[in-house]
Amino acid sequence: MMDELLLKNDNKVIFLILDGLGDIPNPPFDLKTPLEAAKKPNMDGLAVQRGVLGRIIPVDVGITPGSGPGHLSLFGYDPQVHEIGRGVLEVLGLNMKLKDGDLAARANFCTIKEGLVTDRRAGRIPTSETERLCGLISSEIKEVEGCEVIVKPGKSHRFAVIFRGKDLTDRLTDADPHKDNKPLTYTSAKAPEAGFSARVVNSFMERVMVLLKAEPVANGALLRGFSLKPDITPFTEKFAMKALAIATYPMYRGIAKVLGMDVRDEPANYDEAVSILKKNYNDYQFFFFHVKETDLAGEDGNFEEKVQAIENVDRFLPEIAGLDPHTLVITGDHSTPCPLKGHSWHPVPALIVTKTGETDGRAFHEKNCLAGSVGTIYSKDLMSLALAHGGRLDKYGA
Amino acid sequence: MMDELLLKNDNKVIFLILDGLGDIPNPPFDLKTPLEAAKKPNMDGLAVQRGVLGRIIPVDVGITPGSGPGHLSLFGYDPQVHEIGRGVLEVLGLNMKLKDGDLAARANFCTIKEGLVTDRRAGRIPTSETERLCGLISSEIKEVEGCEVIVKPGKSHRFAVIFRGKDLTDRLTDADPHKDNKPLTYTSAKAPEAGFSARVVNSFMERVMVLLKAEPVANGALLRGFSLKPDITPFTEKFAMKALAIATYPMYRGIAKVLGMDVRDEPANYDEAVSILKKNYNDYQFFFFHVKETDLAGEDGNFEEKVQAIENVDRFLPEIAGLDPHTLVITGDHSTPCPLKGHSWHPVPALIVTKTGETDGRAFHEKNCLAGSVGTIYSKDLMSLALAHGGRLDKYGA
Repeated sequence: MMDELLLKNDNKVIFLILDGLGDIPNPPFDLKTPLEAAKKPNMDGLAVQRGVLGRIIPVDVGITPGSGPGHLSLFGYDPQVHEIGRGVLEVLGLNMKLKDGDLAARANFCTIKEGLVTDRRAGRIPTSETERLCGLISSEIKEVEGCEVIVKPGKSHRFAVIFRGKDLTDRLTDADPHKDNKPLTYTSAKAPEAGFSARVVNSFMERVMVLLKAEPVANGALLRGFSLKPDITPFTEKFAMKALAIATYPMYRGIAKVLGMDVRDEPANYDEAVSILKKNYNDYQFFFFHVKETDLAGEDGNFEEKVQAIENVDRFLPEIAGLDPHTLVITGDHSTPCPLKGHSWHPVPALIVTKTGETDGRAFHEKNCLAGSVGTIYSKDLMSLALAHGGRLDKYGA
Repeated sequence: MMDELLLKNDNKVIFLILDGLGDIPNPPFDLKTPLEAAKKPNMDGLAVQRGVLGRIIPVDVGITPGSGPGHLSLFGYDPQVHEIGRGVLEVLGLNMKLKDGDLAARANFCTIKEGLVTDRRAGRIPTSETERLCGLISSEIKEVEGCEVIVKPGKSHRFAVIFRGKDLTDRLTDADPHKDNKPLTYTSAKAPEAGFSARVVNSFMERVMVLLKAEPVANGALLRGFSLKPDITPFTEKFAMKALAIATYPMYRGIAKVLGMDVRDEPANYDEAVSILKKNYNDYQFFFFHVKETDLAGEDGNFEEKVQAIENVDRFLPEIAGLDPHTLVITGDHSTPCPLKGHSWHPVPALIVTKTGETDGRAFHEKNCLAGSVGTIYSKDLMSLALAHGGRLDKYGA
């Protein structure tokens, strides 16, 4: 329905996404949430003067989302229909360029003795070792079975692989025994058409073993999370807005690219990020501005650090709000409550700064959002609201 | 989706179900609800310290559920997809054992004169008469058309029938004119494959009339609500938890059995019920603990009795909460508001006692639940939340 209602104009929509923003009452801090405890005069000023509040459910009631489903839903894609696979996310996190048809995988160096994987992590070799070994693979194994091979080192024993060629599919089992002291496992095809892809992956693994046979520890590789760049309607087409993604972390620039958003620069910090936003403001209608530190603090269970991350956003918020977009949305892709030290299923607080004159008249935090006029909606429906407030949706029906 | 996310562990989940718990503001009692008026220091203590509140909609907005849909949805089954038929519920309520393929029906004794059903309820003959007549049928009509026949008397003129044999289906119309002074109605097949089942039922009705032809009042039987034991994924398989049902009323033990839950004992009172829970606590992960009296009081329109029923639960609640399950849910299968003297469509208040540290900090009743952090969800989604709080659901997507 929505595509028929889209209006074309230059009204701006900004999504300021604080990763893992949502939290729960923290017992050691008077049952406050970090968003509630943070001193954020700018954010709360906007909320009180022209903010409507609500909560968004990323996937479904009780379901804890990963970063892929969390962002897909924010951008109006049903996360139960579309998927960004683990291999693709890994590759994006390492800032690798992914093309249509590319097959991506997460990989580990491992130790193999007489056909047994004795250590899936090759003694957690240092990153420098992984860099050396990936260099070796890059220079010696440029292609297998007619497919280009691209590897990039990650941290410790981890690296990522892209296979680039025709007719590749991700209908493959993990080439990983998932436990130590099990026989080396190759990938196998989950569907008849995956036979060629399985041969590509398994040939690669054999070539790596031959290449590394003299290595004392890391003499093999395991691959898993095979996934293709998802076949998805580009954001610009879906919502009739040119979109720019601004993120300090590569994975989020990568997710944006997969959705067809532009990425012009790689900001080292939020001052640079804000500059990128300002510099490109006239050329786009939609802006995805990603902040990672809220999630990192939540994962660490560090309440004060999460508060600080929010207060830091509040510091540069006036520069964003000062651009006076039609709609400014401040929310998260999921909750990462400090007491749980990880992603959770809890609905995420959302603030929509409007130009309609309306306001809920309240500061922005979980408890006020529970009573906010937006109500509790699915994240995938947030985009409709943002478009509506942005004057970008026509009336439905006469 | 959910089946892929299930984690296997021994974390316990207890559903304490107060049948018909939900109510509405009662004008004669200062517009309080029974749950609001009840003195329940234990329940409110749990709610204030570590409870999140919300409301659950059993079937859909405005829809009043029976016991079947009410419980199906609590246990995570979509009540608009799955059904427990009336015949099956009747049979379960009489504590009859139901096997796969059994065809169940509700039955009445009636008065037939010259082909007309002159009294569908046979003058509401006393239960003792129905017991005598069912005894007669049991000894004289052991089988029809090769199908075993099992009857059991209910209250007044009511009884229940199970037909046990091969190829039985419930695609049958009621063998009941539904009004007095109409011609005797036989069942007819709603689908081609139901011809045999119709013949079984109609032969049974004819045999009953021959057997009872000398009876002055109850000289025939009407059958309705034909239903098979539902073909449904067992709870244990669906949620990767061994489940035990503890209920003082047979119908609820029966519903649980239909869903593949275990029933080990038939408690005569709640002290026995609590003992059963404690005794079996190590052998199961999920516990369905059913309390009937709240519904009975609601059906009677008796506010004080409903208050008492809740206060009685509060008396034994510490013994349940003392087991320290990962998740304790206190809610109902539907609302039975005293002013309405029957089931209703009103959302049902729900309390989840959590281990995350979070709390809404409020006593448990309808008005606080309306503002609770769980929000208003469908009953069928409550199980996801219970599993999430129970540490039994993995993250969705990377």
